[in-house]
Amino acid sequence: MSQQIDANGQLRHFLTTEGLPPDLLNRLLDTADSFTGVIDKSVKKVPLLRGRTVVNLFFEPSTRTRTTFELAAKRLSADVLNVDMGTTSVKGESLADMLHNLEAMQADLFVVRHADSGAANYIADRVDDSVAILNAGDGRHAHPTQAMLDALTIRRHKGRFEPLTVAIVGDILHSRVARSQIHALNGLATGEVRVIAPRTLLPEDIESLGVKVYYDPDEGLKDADVVIMLRLQRERMQGALLPSEGEYFKRYGLTRERLARAHPEAIVMHPGPINRGVEIESSVADGRQSVILEQVTNGIAIRMAVMSTVLGAYHDAGREAE
Amino acid sequence: MSQQIDANGQLRHFLTTEGLPPDLLNRLLDTADSFTGVIDKSVKKVPLLRGRTVVNLFFEPSTRTRTTFELAAKRLSADVLNVDMGTTSVKGESLADMLHNLEAMQADLFVVRHADSGAANYIADRVDDSVAILNAGDGRHAHPTQAMLDALTIRRHKGRFEPLTVAIVGDILHSRVARSQIHALNGLATGEVRVIAPRTLLPEDIESLGVKVYYDPDEGLKDADVVIMLRLQRERMQGALLPSEGEYFKRYGLTRERLARAHPEAIVMHPGPINRGVEIESSVADGRQSVILEQVTNGIAIRMAVMSTVLGAYHDAGREAE
Amino acid sequence: MSQQIDANGQLRHFLTTEGLPPDLLNRLLDTADSFTGVIDKSVKKVPLLRGRTVVNLFFEPSTRTRTTFELAAKRLSADVLNVDMGTTSVKGESLADMLHNLEAMQADLFVVRHADSGAANYIADRVDDSVAILNAGDGRHAHPTQAMLDALTIRRHKGRFEPLTVAIVGDILHSRVARSQIHALNGLATGEVRVIAPRTLLPEDIESLGVKVYYDPDEGLKDADVVIMLRLQRERMQGALLPSEGEYFKRYGLTRERLARAHPEAIVMHPGPINRGVEIESSVADGRQSVILEQVTNGIAIRMAVMSTVLGAYHDAGREAE
Repeated sequence: MSQQIDANGQLRHFLTTEGLPPDLLNRLLDTADSFTGVIDKSVKKVPLLRGRTVVNLFFEPSTRTRTTFELAAKRLSADVLNVDMGTTSVKGESLADMLHNLEAMQADLFVVRHADSGAANYIADRVDDSVAILNAGDGRHAHPTQAMLDALTIRRHKGRFEPLTVAIVGDILHSRVARSQIHALNGLATGEVRVIAPRTLLPEDIESLGVKVYYDPDEGLKDADVVIMLRLQRERMQGALLPSEGEYFKRYGLTRERLARAHPEAIVMHPGPINRGVEIESSVADGRQSVILEQVTNGIAIRMAVMSTVLGAYHDAGREAE
Repeated sequence: MSQQIDANGQLRHFLTTEGLPPDLLNRLLDTADSFTGVIDKSVKKVPLLRGRTVVNLFFEPSTRTRTTFELAAKRLSADVLNVDMGTTSVKGESLADMLHNLEAMQADLFVVRHADSGAANYIADRVDDSVAILNAGDGRHAHPTQAMLDALTIRRHKGRFEPLTVAIVGDILHSRVARSQIHALNGLATGEVRVIAPRTLLPEDIESLGVKVYYDPDEGLKDADVVIMLRLQRERMQGALLPSEGEYFKRYGLTRERLARAHPEAIVMHPGPINRGVEIESSVADGRQSVILEQVTNGIAIRMAVMSTVLGAYHDAGREAE
Repeated sequence: MSQQIDANGQLRHFLTTEGLPPDLLNRLLDTADSFTGVIDKSVKKVPLLRGRTVVNLFFEPSTRTRTTFELAAKRLSADVLNVDMGTTSVKGESLADMLHNLEAMQADLFVVRHADSGAANYIADRVDDSVAILNAGDGRHAHPTQAMLDALTIRRHKGRFEPLTVAIVGDILHSRVARSQIHALNGLATGEVRVIAPRTLLPEDIESLGVKVYYDPDEGLKDADVVIMLRLQRERMQGALLPSEGEYFKRYGLTRERLARAHPEAIVMHPGPINRGVEIESSVADGRQSVILEQVTNGIAIRMAVMSTVLGAYHDAGREAE
């Protein structure tokens, strides 16, 4: 069995979208759907995780991402501890000792964010059976809840994945988001997944992930049903991988003209925060086809779904209801 | 209709005490009164905002003020997110994008603190219908919850505003507190509102706000029923607007002798934190006439009143009870 | 009556284990025991402190300790405010004014951590009747919840204190933990309490606390039922009180060989975080006799017991149940 699925086929950790069985991916989307009603009501709380303790273990600061997990946990009625590992004195205490301490305090779930690829897996290998690990982004490796909220947004707009062409545009090389999206979309049997990027921002072995590669956005966007723009990390400019922001926008930025190459009902997505005028034109980001803010809303629902699933709470609640 | 009152006359945001109708001001005080019992009980919680999400959006640090809003929200059973905008990386994301993100996460209320006048109004102009804005202090413009907690404290001690003479003493020029107090007290039909300050700390057009100006505290305090001392911001000294702290205390500080000019039953107020020996003598701050700590208690009740009113929760609860 | 016990013999603050009557110490342990079942259940919350406000007032940063108090308070359903006094601007406001402000906000319990000995007592002297103080470590003076969680761990493993020999090893001189442990263990009528340390790390009057002094660990550990290792503060090295970490480990570090001097069923304790290879060998810290992680779990239960006792909630709940 994989590190994240237990002997009964249940999701035990949530580390990556790679290798997850289709029915599990679909069940997560279904569960998230069931929480959307919850979010819309004025009382947005369900008691699924009452008395459970969720610890946000952020080794890399990200107020934005932490906030989404904190909100999701609170709406499930969990208690939330924010532990900023960057500023926490670990006083010579090894990471393993610190994890065991949190386990001994009966924490149930660690949400891990780390600058190093594989950090969440590393931690998942070292925790007790009683604790679940949720990867909130590790280096260039994976950002599985982002990929799943994107899948949820696509399914809500397009219904099924089989007939769809999805184009992912931008810095594929450095993007944990792109990697997780590709695995999730292929796991969900998406018709065709395309990546569009300059050669310098594409990993060499990218085709082995099951995508079609395009260097020219005008070609790659043709008839796409879903256009996912990636955020351009400005620090990439320094590495001489890219000429300039202006040049990047000219060649890869999503303008209205370029979007016209896609299917007329194509939706436009972006993981946020947007660099307006760098990877996307403001009129497109705010336009009729943009579903960028829906992604944010769906992000809360997906995180609620993953949290309650790995803690067995949703499963149990479902059972009781039967 | 004004920016903060909707077409049905309901309070939609709470940005300033300027221009608020008297019945609305009085209703807020009544609502706050109804929460005082709640605060006194050992279980100080009411479920009015259960499942609602309150976001403290502080662009200017103020642990003290943030704490009062956080407590008020928690006692209404809301979930609270503290977002320290000063240290938050906004990663090139425009403020509007960030606000829309928080809206998309289904936040219900933003408590905004900002060093620039008009910041809360600016934000109120840009948020969705689903979100209410509460001004927790913006530059020199307004600090309406402080003004309302002062009004609540006065009403509890003096009953009606019509027969009262209220004297506000100190740095009127730079004080958002004074500005909001003047608007609230006049809106509540206070008999006479006086300001007492050196010429250098008075705005030129101050009389147009409906106050009587005094430069001499011995004159201005005469027969006052309420004496409100303002906090002296030490940084004002640098601007050469003031000679020295010692000199300021000598000329404007509230001593026992000076307080004796006021009505024998006058109450002494201060928004805190106090500069003992600068704007107020310790024996007065801790004396029989001081209601400074009651102001703090009333501050929680007022914030609970404003929060539940702008979210329609108090209104609805009232309806149901009928 | 002492500062921490009221006229009815009830625990009003929790500042030190010194001078606490045996029945009160035992009642705290019993109460903590009753919470262990709570901690083990998947819903780990009890409503004892619902609506109560616990303020963590940390003048010395300690994420680790703050986390345990925050968790304990949340599992009692209290609202928790973390006030980091180190970074809080006090704006010239005296500490007393700040405390009175928090009281006026109807806070019920202050958890105080301070680098100065006596700080918690100082604050307890200055608060209103409505507020209880809980000492979370003050200078070299006391760390009473740590001592009580140690006592709880010992009682769970060994049953009674009377027949036991407990050895405390390490920097007794600078340790608030050791001081509180000695008072608690003697209060609980422990058979023999030993301290084992180099002369430079022992206070001169230590025998007056009712302990037997050993300089040689091989002698002091002989037949001990409980071995408590203290954390070696690395900054002590600078003061020339100690030669080097390596030398310290050689002379006082708990190795398997050294532990073999103790009773075969002796338990090994440490307040954490551990310096592996400095005061304790890894194989001992992780070995069969180590109860170090149980101490962490018991720490939550003890803090729940102390919090609910000083707020009268456990007492009341017990009464109702009768």
